[in-house]
Amino acid sequence: MQTTNPRAVVLLSGGLDSATVAAIAKNEGRELFALTIDYGQRHKQEIEAAKKVAEHLGIAQHLIMPVNLRLFGGSSLTSDMEVPKNVPAELIGQHIPNTYVPARNTIFLALALAYAESVGADRIYIGISSVDYSGYPDCRPEFLQAFNALANLATKLGVESSSFSIEAPLLSLSKRETILRGLELGVDYSLTFTCYDPLPGGESCGCCESCLLRSEAFRGVGTLSLVEPVA
Amino acid sequence: MQTTNPRAVVLLSGGLDSATVAAIAKNEGRELFALTIDYGQRHKQEIEAAKKVAEHLGIAQHLIMPVNLRLFGGSSLTSDMEVPKNVPAELIGQHIPNTYVPARNTIFLALALAYAESVGADRIYIGISSVDYSGYPDCRPEFLQAFNALANLATKLGVESSSFSIEAPLLSLSKRETILRGLELGVDYSLTFTCYDPLPGGESCGCCESCLLRSEAFRGVGTLSLVEPVA
Repeated sequence: MQTTNPRAVVLLSGGLDSATVAAIAKNEGRELFALTIDYGQRHKQEIEAAKKVAEHLGIAQHLIMPVNLRLFGGSSLTSDMEVPKNVPAELIGQHIPNTYVPARNTIFLALALAYAESVGADRIYIGISSVDYSGYPDCRPEFLQAFNALANLATKLGVESSSFSIEAPLLSLSKRETILRGLELGVDYSLTFTCYDPLPGGESCGCCESCLLRSEAFRGVGTLSLVEPVA
Repeated sequence: MQTTNPRAVVLLSGGLDSATVAAIAKNEGRELFALTIDYGQRHKQEIEAAKKVAEHLGIAQHLIMPVNLRLFGGSSLTSDMEVPKNVPAELIGQHIPNTYVPARNTIFLALALAYAESVGADRIYIGISSVDYSGYPDCRPEFLQAFNALANLATKLGVESSSFSIEAPLLSLSKRETILRGLELGVDYSLTFTCYDPLPGGESCGCCESCLLRSEAFRGVGTLSLVEPVA
């Protein structure tokens, strides 16, 4: 029966947000086509995590696409710039940190749009949130709306039916609410990986903004044992 | 003196339109950063042409970025589908042919936006036109406006200054007018390559839509000797 479900593309990074979004899309009855971008990120481990999450969720097709954003640099995630550590919680999201990757979500959504049009999917799911986030401009509702408008002007399917919809079900959820939703849907967060700057052995650093937001959220939920992925 | 000029990114395919646009951007006093996408296109020759055009125009930096759109397929340019041949002139642009590559210009502009932000360029030049074209949705003015709006919401530089501008100086020019403008600016069209479906020896097929539009335009200008690139 699964192949008769309407299709959707989900951007799957391997982190907790995109794993939750994939579970939400599946719960909404979609057949999932997952796209992971190998963009030269410092935290390559997330790609392995994405593979495990895709398998866990029974995704129809999972593409891993190399797009080397190190050619451009401009971010601590795609160059030798240092990743900020131990930023006080009240300062996170108050400025755009150097972990911002120029135009990353625009690139990811553009690729997801091509994938969606190619497989006949009219929905794209992305795990962005503008709560408990690092202040990235391409995680805000106005960015999302602008991309949705673009999708329906840029493509054959969009022009013919205006039917593309970019879904960001976590947009107004806190990280804690995201995890509670995922746990309801049976997401195994031990498969996910979040850290921006893993230690040489591959373990999470525990003090980048991404680790701090993750551990704070799991503390809120009361399941701290799920903060770190199973190696 | 050149390094003090304001910077711009130009999408350089190796075809006649993008060569003309690069010459226009240079003539407008911009220091040029050229981006060519090796997207798995059937007509790889255009990448070699792009290198020659970049050298001819004295471009500051030329990046060639692999992004394998064959992973998605969905177009005769990125799969084994057949490229349409000998389409009557009056039918070109009346429907969207299978040479349309899903979301291609959205992907290309997204990558150009990342490049621009990384090098501090606030303009991106693209050689799209909605005259003498194949009816692609992502060559229309409304697409361009939507992407420009997105660029200023999606990026740190855009949010801080709303200064990104996507320039498409050929948007309302016929192919003939484009060539006349390029010749005024000294563009050497023998370096450019246009054919969608080159012969095994690398020569232009002469009968795909791209070849037909090119040769018709050069006939209009009266310089048919420039239709074919120098091998």
